[in-house]
Amino acid sequence: MGKKIKVGIIGAGRIGKLHAENIKANFDNVELKSIADIYAERVRDWAYGIGVSNVYEDYKKIIEDPEIDAVLICSSTDTHCQLIIESARAGKQIFCEKPIDFDLNKINTALEEVKKAGVKLQIGFQRRFDPHFRKAKKYIDEGKVGQIHIIKITSRDPEPPPIEYVKVSGGIFLDMTIHDFDMARFLSGSEVEEVFAYGAVMVDPAIGEVGDVDTAVVNLKFKNGVLAVIDNSRKAVYGYDQRIEVFGSQGCIKVENVSSSNVIVSTSDGIISDKPKYFFIERYRDAYIEELREFFDSIISDREPSVSGKDGLEPVLIGLAAQKSLKEGRPVRIER
Amino acid sequence: MGKKIKVGIIGAGRIGKLHAENIKANFDNVELKSIADIYAERVRDWAYGIGVSNVYEDYKKIIEDPEIDAVLICSSTDTHCQLIIESARAGKQIFCEKPIDFDLNKINTALEEVKKAGVKLQIGFQRRFDPHFRKAKKYIDEGKVGQIHIIKITSRDPEPPPIEYVKVSGGIFLDMTIHDFDMARFLSGSEVEEVFAYGAVMVDPAIGEVGDVDTAVVNLKFKNGVLAVIDNSRKAVYGYDQRIEVFGSQGCIKVENVSSSNVIVSTSDGIISDKPKYFFIERYRDAYIEELREFFDSIISDREPSVSGKDGLEPVLIGLAAQKSLKEGRPVRIER
Amino acid sequence: MGKKIKVGIIGAGRIGKLHAENIKANFDNVELKSIADIYAERVRDWAYGIGVSNVYEDYKKIIEDPEIDAVLICSSTDTHCQLIIESARAGKQIFCEKPIDFDLNKINTALEEVKKAGVKLQIGFQRRFDPHFRKAKKYIDEGKVGQIHIIKITSRDPEPPPIEYVKVSGGIFLDMTIHDFDMARFLSGSEVEEVFAYGAVMVDPAIGEVGDVDTAVVNLKFKNGVLAVIDNSRKAVYGYDQRIEVFGSQGCIKVENVSSSNVIVSTSDGIISDKPKYFFIERYRDAYIEELREFFDSIISDREPSVSGKDGLEPVLIGLAAQKSLKEGRPVRIER
Amino acid sequence: MGKKIKVGIIGAGRIGKLHAENIKANFDNVELKSIADIYAERVRDWAYGIGVSNVYEDYKKIIEDPEIDAVLICSSTDTHCQLIIESARAGKQIFCEKPIDFDLNKINTALEEVKKAGVKLQIGFQRRFDPHFRKAKKYIDEGKVGQIHIIKITSRDPEPPPIEYVKVSGGIFLDMTIHDFDMARFLSGSEVEEVFAYGAVMVDPAIGEVGDVDTAVVNLKFKNGVLAVIDNSRKAVYGYDQRIEVFGSQGCIKVENVSSSNVIVSTSDGIISDKPKYFFIERYRDAYIEELREFFDSIISDREPSVSGKDGLEPVLIGLAAQKSLKEGRPVRIER
Repeated sequence: MGKKIKVGIIGAGRIGKLHAENIKANFDNVELKSIADIYAERVRDWAYGIGVSNVYEDYKKIIEDPEIDAVLICSSTDTHCQLIIESARAGKQIFCEKPIDFDLNKINTALEEVKKAGVKLQIGFQRRFDPHFRKAKKYIDEGKVGQIHIIKITSRDPEPPPIEYVKVSGGIFLDMTIHDFDMARFLSGSEVEEVFAYGAVMVDPAIGEVGDVDTAVVNLKFKNGVLAVIDNSRKAVYGYDQRIEVFGSQGCIKVENVSSSNVIVSTSDGIISDKPKYFFIERYRDAYIEELREFFDSIISDREPSVSGKDGLEPVLIGLAAQKSLKEGRPVRIER
Repeated sequence: MGKKIKVGIIGAGRIGKLHAENIKANFDNVELKSIADIYAERVRDWAYGIGVSNVYEDYKKIIEDPEIDAVLICSSTDTHCQLIIESARAGKQIFCEKPIDFDLNKINTALEEVKKAGVKLQIGFQRRFDPHFRKAKKYIDEGKVGQIHIIKITSRDPEPPPIEYVKVSGGIFLDMTIHDFDMARFLSGSEVEEVFAYGAVMVDPAIGEVGDVDTAVVNLKFKNGVLAVIDNSRKAVYGYDQRIEVFGSQGCIKVENVSSSNVIVSTSDGIISDKPKYFFIERYRDAYIEELREFFDSIISDREPSVSGKDGLEPVLIGLAAQKSLKEGRPVRIER
Repeated sequence: MGKKIKVGIIGAGRIGKLHAENIKANFDNVELKSIADIYAERVRDWAYGIGVSNVYEDYKKIIEDPEIDAVLICSSTDTHCQLIIESARAGKQIFCEKPIDFDLNKINTALEEVKKAGVKLQIGFQRRFDPHFRKAKKYIDEGKVGQIHIIKITSRDPEPPPIEYVKVSGGIFLDMTIHDFDMARFLSGSEVEEVFAYGAVMVDPAIGEVGDVDTAVVNLKFKNGVLAVIDNSRKAVYGYDQRIEVFGSQGCIKVENVSSSNVIVSTSDGIISDKPKYFFIERYRDAYIEELREFFDSIISDREPSVSGKDGLEPVLIGLAAQKSLKEGRPVRIER
Repeated sequence: MGKKIKVGIIGAGRIGKLHAENIKANFDNVELKSIADIYAERVRDWAYGIGVSNVYEDYKKIIEDPEIDAVLICSSTDTHCQLIIESARAGKQIFCEKPIDFDLNKINTALEEVKKAGVKLQIGFQRRFDPHFRKAKKYIDEGKVGQIHIIKITSRDPEPPPIEYVKVSGGIFLDMTIHDFDMARFLSGSEVEEVFAYGAVMVDPAIGEVGDVDTAVVNLKFKNGVLAVIDNSRKAVYGYDQRIEVFGSQGCIKVENVSSSNVIVSTSDGIISDKPKYFFIERYRDAYIEELREFFDSIISDREPSVSGKDGLEPVLIGLAAQKSLKEGRPVRIER
């Protein structure tokens, strides 16, 4: 099996921990050597529990470790670019959570450094690796819907994040819709030309008070003519609503929600099916593993990962245009 | 369009009234001339309302009317054979509700008379005309499931009939399952060789007290090797449950329940669909019209109706065998 | 049952004939007395077939007939306003197909005359009477989704109309989307404030050549804050796609397509369900009957029909705004 | 976390390998120390690959190893009882694949030895641990269907096993239906009183030539009155068909098939969903892990595993009765 890939994780919040556990359970050819977190003490017990004894407060311990082949950047968004740059300069292969940043200049600088260093960079758009969406994409590529005309994406969370998080989230378009922008690009096989967004505060006035919206409908016009529409809500009482629909000249492909079970109960009240899986951790359980598989495989095969730095940049461009559209009440063209 | 077919209905209970209204609303080439009912006074207003002024207590007024071309026998089961015989002798075309009778000798005598008179006889197995089951049958005939191996029929009523009705119903197998026996024959394209029945009183002890069961599982072995299983209940709290499944060498065809609407409500309680249509009147609304169309068409084209006297006899044979099987606790072969 | 309502139909194209046949089969208290069509000779046989012997070339024969209580206006759109005015002045109750007209001034004048004459006017938005959408509306009114946040309507035809029709149709927004505008108003319980439309020619270049689009995504912002999005295509190869989704604070209501049957075939190729009912005649069979019932009931009970002149005007306002939005590439506010 | 449970696996065929891999990937507190297989050379490379270096031809190396806490018996059925007895005498905790044996005396002797030794014995009925069936059972226990009246189980394989396997399989009832017998007991909460079986050779005449059937319908009558019906086929061209339905006084619970994806493709051919997951390895992926979790948890908590030796014995009793019923053409009572 050859040498193991040695990995360090920077940032052990919910998503960092998830990646760590997924590596331990699924990748025999990968060794999770070290974990860095600014609250190192809080994560030490958990890290020991999964067999990782190198837990640092200072992420440089990872970047400067010559044994480390690859770095997973799971810290807060404002640290991503700096960490990408330092990791690239140290010759590490890089997996970075979305979004890269909210600032296009910083992103471009980081991507430049990655290019210069000749390292790999994969962005954490895990939905592309969901088996349902992958199969839909495969069917599209096989021509089952012919030429695409309309893409519809519904993406609604089961409940809004804490207001403290909303404040630093970059706004709904860069925090939540960004996944849908990526999915629309993935499905359409084209780039967005123009964006028009409607937004409203309907779930919680506190979200409006910090300058964000919690309900949105975003229209995308792609270069190849495809029209896409995304609808978001921060709160769907029935659970995480994640559906896509791709309509074209030869048919329509839908991916319906994944239920928490296939049990159906018929009573005098009606025919009752289970709700969708609760949230992204449950819904994208397999996708989170598969995106790591892609990353490690790209290292082993020395090829570009299928979700590139450009794939990290484009949704930020779209998100910023959506913000502008909402603010100015008009469609906004993407300037590249 | 030629001459109208003149029709008389004998027995204006629920099903007789339904046929009457269906004739008025759907068949321009049919004239409903007369209605007979032993409680003529009770039905007169309703009859006037649909434009029928000849309402008799004595059914002979219909059978002896030389203008009447066809008779619909919708009276109680014990009168069917006598009315078939009299109608046949009077040269009337005959539509008779199921079951013909509970007594094989009486049925055979009636069928003999029909044959002798050279008139048509259609038995009221309306489910064969349901568009969903018809399409399933069409698919079977086209070979979509290949050679049939297993047939499954679920047939559950939303609530039991009154005990007074149960007493004279002939028992669950001749009253309720008889439709499923017909459906199994229709789908299998073969005749039943052997029957095994389990039955129980689970819905209402009063049904047991009058010697019947309210829950049953019946197995049929067909001459062509097909195995069929029917499950019945007199009470499904979620409504009329009418499903079939035909499994074979090349696939499986299912007909699912027809919902009272396609509305789906997602709430914090689950994903809730509407219940099946309430009972046979709602579920088989179209089928009741289509079986009449078949009857009138067979008269106009002077051909045999697709549900024949034999199709009326066979399910009674099966039902009697099921009764015997339940009583004696063993499989019973059909003697013909 | 009292006196029958005497009805005349002006315009016996597909929809006029449908209404005529529905009246004959379903309304015992309504008499279809006369039919007018500019090609009277072409419809005479059909009219006789359903028992109507008064067939005129000149619609004035209907409007001037003092026996006629109600007029159904099913002629081409450009004649609607004139016929409404003449019918109103003659004191007739009026049912008029959608759209009233493409010209707001003409519509307002017609509505004025209706008001002056004190007659009833119902506009032919039959979808409001579809049992599935009605139930959805009932659930909304009962509060099952709480406060509405997002409405989504998918409306795709199985194939485009002839180019000759497209030319005089008023464009996709006034011909096709107008039903969806009505549905969005019906579901939201509010009025549209602003419209933004994307459109494209993807189905047939000939549609573009006559100045129309065949694919569209239209966003509506309602006064009560509801965001609605409608997507249209002139050609869905799998049949008539008619779905709605109403998302709110307490849940989500969907109406799924109505299949041509409930048969499901499982083979080595997959699990195959039947396609949606082919087109509006099949899909809205019951709705077309129910909208007439509403019209006749409003006459009998002397009350306003539930789809008023204003309900005819508003979708035209929205459609004109959508046209302007598409042309000018910006959201357009509705001016009233 | 305390001491690890040390495990040995006897028999490294498909199911033995599956358990081995599941232990490695999912149980940090379990050490898979040794594997025995009569074809040790064939499995050595695979074993090394998952990090197991102790690979023996002789299973006694496992049973006599004082370090081993628990044994997983995954060898051929005819060896089960002997291995249970030896393992029990050596004080090992035992997990044994189904069926224990085809011979009731041998089973009883083995269970006696287990009892005498005071060790745990869990039988490999993994379906009880499937999350869908578990949830159904939970709903039943919560009373959602009230008193159970009818249980229906459909269990069809995607293709028959090799004839060499069929010969030694013990017949369809002990090889395949045995899982359904267990499921029926699990769901009903009662014991089977009487069995009636129909069987036929419809898939492959070669199966008939070795004395077995490939298509079956089996009826069970439970002590608590529940009627159950199981239908089996060795070949469903659309994949592994695993459905249950539990009907009772308050409603009905169904578990539908688990699709290989939630993608739905609408084309001019119909509305096409993906087929069920291919076979038991895919369908019960999680269940195989969860049954091991139950086994290891029962060891850690020193309690009886929820699938006991009795749960291993009862389905064999039912299977033997089904064989007798099929042979003698009559219902057979279970003698205990």
